[in-house]
Amino acid sequence: MRTIDWVDGAIELIDQTRLPGECVMLRIHTVDELIDAIRRLAVRGAPALGVAGALGVALAGEDPGAIARLRAARPTAVNLAWGVDQAAARLPEGPRAVLDAALRIRDDDIAACVAMGERGADLLDGDRLRIMTVCNSGGLAAVERGTALGVVQTLHERGRLAEVLALETRPLLQGARLTTWELARMGAPHRLVTDSAGPYLLAKGGIDAVLIGADRIAANGDTANKIGSYALALGAERAGVPFIVVAPETTIDPATPSGEHIHIEDRGGDEVVSLGGVRVAPEGTEALNPAFDVTPHDLITAIVTDRRVIRP
Amino acid sequence: MRTIDWVDGAIELIDQTRLPGECVMLRIHTVDELIDAIRRLAVRGAPALGVAGALGVALAGEDPGAIARLRAARPTAVNLAWGVDQAAARLPEGPRAVLDAALRIRDDDIAACVAMGERGADLLDGDRLRIMTVCNSGGLAAVERGTALGVVQTLHERGRLAEVLALETRPLLQGARLTTWELARMGAPHRLVTDSAGPYLLAKGGIDAVLIGADRIAANGDTANKIGSYALALGAERAGVPFIVVAPETTIDPATPSGEHIHIEDRGGDEVVSLGGVRVAPEGTEALNPAFDVTPHDLITAIVTDRRVIRP
Repeated sequence: MRTIDWVDGAIELIDQTRLPGECVMLRIHTVDELIDAIRRLAVRGAPALGVAGALGVALAGEDPGAIARLRAARPTAVNLAWGVDQAAARLPEGPRAVLDAALRIRDDDIAACVAMGERGADLLDGDRLRIMTVCNSGGLAAVERGTALGVVQTLHERGRLAEVLALETRPLLQGARLTTWELARMGAPHRLVTDSAGPYLLAKGGIDAVLIGADRIAANGDTANKIGSYALALGAERAGVPFIVVAPETTIDPATPSGEHIHIEDRGGDEVVSLGGVRVAPEGTEALNPAFDVTPHDLITAIVTDRRVIRP
Repeated sequence: MRTIDWVDGAIELIDQTRLPGECVMLRIHTVDELIDAIRRLAVRGAPALGVAGALGVALAGEDPGAIARLRAARPTAVNLAWGVDQAAARLPEGPRAVLDAALRIRDDDIAACVAMGERGADLLDGDRLRIMTVCNSGGLAAVERGTALGVVQTLHERGRLAEVLALETRPLLQGARLTTWELARMGAPHRLVTDSAGPYLLAKGGIDAVLIGADRIAANGDTANKIGSYALALGAERAGVPFIVVAPETTIDPATPSGEHIHIEDRGGDEVVSLGGVRVAPEGTEALNPAFDVTPHDLITAIVTDRRVIRP
């Protein structure tokens, strides 16, 4: 099962807002349907957004307005705009060339995640590893295998994984809903923890590495990823635990010199003051909701890509 | 309105599990009812637990089993056992002496929170202060005014408060449910944020101080408080923001030499895998749920008590 694919002239993707309750496949026929799916996080994760962007151009045809709207649907992950640009560059050659480019991005992602999984697993020492992660960087964030969770999967396949501690990832709980679901499917031992417990559990000891994905990596190595990544990086540094970013080369944005230039999406207070229809704060409460944060490069032990290991 | 009090021969307390939806007062006639209220967090907060423990001895009479069960109802906050011990020491003098001791603890708490509010407000410079806090250290955690949120209240009364950023405090959302409710009642500007956003917002700048309460302060200044406090301390240190603990002298436990000797309560996974009655993780998901963490003394700028300012 692929998270996102091109099937019979349309995009098919898993509606991640319905997980873990049910696994529903959406068929997407128009760019506006795709933008809606991206905005409400039916499809999410930087690599998957790159594929979505490219396949979306195949749906858009030569409508430049639709392509521009798609490109800006979510601002932090560089992969979405990159995927759109890669496919749109082939528009002069006709729709078949656009689709071929998009399908190559899909196939490249599949190969890149395999490569990252192997490189990341090779990088880590030990054979009873306890790994901490936040949000979802698994197959649901890519096409088949994931980035950081792809490394976890490779470790598990090699018999070297003792346990994953998955942070729940408020407000939208991608860790609680999606990462646990993927880990259960792969048969990997895991426990869920609240986000704020991450740094404390690192201080208590026994965790071998923090592995996270990335939405945009600046030229100097500063890394934007799901909110909570920075707190984990602080906790890992204090505890002397390796903090490793796993992302395809396409997530590195040479046009962004450092983290302070990365636009951090605020998704509005509604996601914070309620959950699943249950209101958790008094009526009228306002909330800040930065969806990502930036981890400065000095807190990052290594960046593992499909081509290399970078030590910022 | 007092959070907890002795009225006509019974304990009356606000059922904090019902807030912010409704403000319901419980009447507690037996120690077992009180233990249940403490365990399910109908009454919570270190100072309030001290008063609850003392008043509970007045309910227990000379039943040593009941007193021992009450003393152990929650392990991390030192104040509960302290309140029990203070009142129980008067048992040989008869029930009136026990109740008088308990009522003095209640009155001392009220006075201590006024003193902490003033001392904390005096300690901070500036007159448009933006304060970050976690969990609830307000009147709901004490009797009338709070500890860390008592300082906020004093700042607000002095016209020196610009805004409070309140962390929601998963899993039980005391920040989202209780702190916002108190801040709204006092008319103090505030916004809610997820716990993991705290360190990132500190890095972004513009926050003048982090103020937290405490459940137990070891002899060396290491401080146990609600899970998430340690992550905020790491964020505050990196951002150069003062990190200030506000707690009565009774929270300092000279019998505990350092943080590693503090027993951290794990409240079980059920609180993590659901939110407001809504299940958020797949069936069968296990979770760790440390309710508190320990902030090492070197990350604490100052401890403000009702008697002094300690700089660990």
